[in-house]
Amino acid sequence: MNRVLILGIDGYIGYALAMELLKGGYEVCGLDNLSRRRLVCQAGSDSLTPIAEFSTRTTYLRGFDNYIDSPATINLSDFYLTERVLREYKPDTIVHLAEQPSAPWSMKGPRQCIDTQVSNIAGTLALLWAMRSQCPEAHLIKLGTMGEYGTPNCDIPEGFIPPNGPNCLIPEDTAILGKCPMHGLPFPRQPGSFYHLSKVHDSYNIEFACKTWDLRSTDIMQGVVFGLNHPDLPQDYPLSLTRFDYDQYFGTAINRFCAQAILGIPLTVYGTGEMVRGFLPLKDSIQCITLLIENPPAFGEYRVVNQFENTYTIEELATEVEIAAVDVGLGVAETVHITNPRTESQKHYYNPSHQTLFDLGYQPSPNIYQEIVNTLKVLKNFKSRINPNCIQPTTKWR
Amino acid sequence: MNRVLILGIDGYIGYALAMELLKGGYEVCGLDNLSRRRLVCQAGSDSLTPIAEFSTRTTYLRGFDNYIDSPATINLSDFYLTERVLREYKPDTIVHLAEQPSAPWSMKGPRQCIDTQVSNIAGTLALLWAMRSQCPEAHLIKLGTMGEYGTPNCDIPEGFIPPNGPNCLIPEDTAILGKCPMHGLPFPRQPGSFYHLSKVHDSYNIEFACKTWDLRSTDIMQGVVFGLNHPDLPQDYPLSLTRFDYDQYFGTAINRFCAQAILGIPLTVYGTGEMVRGFLPLKDSIQCITLLIENPPAFGEYRVVNQFENTYTIEELATEVEIAAVDVGLGVAETVHITNPRTESQKHYYNPSHQTLFDLGYQPSPNIYQEIVNTLKVLKNFKSRINPNCIQPTTKWR
Repeated sequence: MNRVLILGIDGYIGYALAMELLKGGYEVCGLDNLSRRRLVCQAGSDSLTPIAEFSTRTTYLRGFDNYIDSPATINLSDFYLTERVLREYKPDTIVHLAEQPSAPWSMKGPRQCIDTQVSNIAGTLALLWAMRSQCPEAHLIKLGTMGEYGTPNCDIPEGFIPPNGPNCLIPEDTAILGKCPMHGLPFPRQPGSFYHLSKVHDSYNIEFACKTWDLRSTDIMQGVVFGLNHPDLPQDYPLSLTRFDYDQYFGTAINRFCAQAILGIPLTVYGTGEMVRGFLPLKDSIQCITLLIENPPAFGEYRVVNQFENTYTIEELATEVEIAAVDVGLGVAETVHITNPRTESQKHYYNPSHQTLFDLGYQPSPNIYQEIVNTLKVLKNFKSRINPNCIQPTTKWR
Repeated sequence: MNRVLILGIDGYIGYALAMELLKGGYEVCGLDNLSRRRLVCQAGSDSLTPIAEFSTRTTYLRGFDNYIDSPATINLSDFYLTERVLREYKPDTIVHLAEQPSAPWSMKGPRQCIDTQVSNIAGTLALLWAMRSQCPEAHLIKLGTMGEYGTPNCDIPEGFIPPNGPNCLIPEDTAILGKCPMHGLPFPRQPGSFYHLSKVHDSYNIEFACKTWDLRSTDIMQGVVFGLNHPDLPQDYPLSLTRFDYDQYFGTAINRFCAQAILGIPLTVYGTGEMVRGFLPLKDSIQCITLLIENPPAFGEYRVVNQFENTYTIEELATEVEIAAVDVGLGVAETVHITNPRTESQKHYYNPSHQTLFDLGYQPSPNIYQEIVNTLKVLKNFKSRINPNCIQPTTKWR
């Protein structure tokens, strides 16, 4: 029996993952410091889906035989508490989703920036030290982001420079194996915000801990996740439904577009919308994490996987939401282009690899359009919960 | 007139730099939180050179017409205080030496590790935000370390992958300019401790701030510094003399060997001593920083310089100290090899570039042997201050 500890169990992915793992028969325990609820509140917003209080969720989780009851909410960076949790639970797998996940929040001001890096880095460091002393054989699955790589003018491998280098210009017939003198070194990162930087820092820290202490970890470079954990409104909602953020800070592109489509206000695309990113539905993210739980790396291995279904331009996705909005009876949605608050290339080369998860058996959702339709159908029920004033970006990178 | 703010003015390099800049006619101000004194005390040691209390040093500094009096000791990570200092001083150059500088200290336990990364990263972030609002045209000179690169199996450029890649295997006669598809990206880092990692994190944060906010910075990848800021015992000591650490945490290789030679106990080389590193005397470090103050990068530029005189094996340097010890009348020193507490390659390729500083006019000390002799001559006066029990490594990487 694989015993899984979910850090950030009250979050968007964390709660959805807990539901799936409990249904799948895994022993599950979880921790959270409730920072996501607090920060979204500070951003003047709330989950678009009505979600239960954490104490109610905890009572609900206790109803599953394979749920292991957890202590009060804790901060991961409190090393002695984190160490005690690992000593008591002895997890086989730790899924670490307990970080501040918003790029614009980290750019809002010095306090938010410093809080983001300090809490993300200190939490992960405390966890690594606690794993070293309490469960050095456990598999740490850590959520990073495709945004760690930025948009370099070459193919993006999974974490490390491949033997021949990406897009190497050495003629194919030159018989030198391992041609790139930098092969095996970490692929250069070009993160685009202090949040993305915090994930790069985590990656370096985890790689070092694996090398030095023989820990094992999978570092997920995840694309942008969207959608919900149920194709229809579940009968027991709000109990099994995960949160859904749509504000300028914690709402990602498709999720923001969905909220706008439901309100009948224009979908706001940043800049030209030609930026290309990897995307995946929430249920694909859960499928991939489950595959990683089932297929741990070797002891001492630091494995990087790029986790996304496919790459899309932001403009394409806005169009998908426009069409889906009509199909679910929301009327015609309009797309407008607004000044990009971020500093990022709008036209760029983008060709990241994502082979590892497919090799492990990842079966992507056949149709992201259908995922958007399902999401809109559920969210339609909660139109009155949307605050239109918290969607437009007010935090600028420059 | 170039107005220089030295962060970490009470430290090993900081105080020596202040002395030289004040003699050179620069306007100098400085800050410190006195953490170096506190941490060395926690490590059971003290500066081998007798140094004055910070309040006495401050009184001494006020005797220079070009010293600008500074407020009480502050923590850089206290953003509002840091911002106020920049608003009041409007420095042209900020030399940022205010970080926890010990690799073994960062490996001692979870508290020391987390403190190192949090204080180094949060301090630098607060400084960047304060520069953005108060002095965006100032030149930030930030102390990093050659240890950010580790020991890859290829040449090490200065910060970024060069147009043709390091040691590129594409035949010279292939007429493709900018052959390496990764050129211009940050050269991969392979830091060897949580301290070295903190410097990598700083480098990424500073590069991003330069790109996003048009700040300008020189990030110094510095080799290991040794020696003192005076060739002889100065008449006004302890006033103008900088600190000198020799303990297992804050003493670097040559400085530790010097303390052992003076005590007449064996010089302890970690492992085989075949590891190669860049080294430079303290006075060369001061010369290089002064050259960088005089030659700032363009606005918005993030410049990386590798700062060392030359590369040496640890074994070679122990031999130099052995010979110097005899020459200054200390008797025959012996070298012993002890188990390496670190995890590092002992035999490795090492060919880092250090051209930029030479192009700016760096005139290295002609003779590092003479620097060691001078150091021993001064330190001999303080033999009774050396505690032999704090030199042997007790913190192991694994």
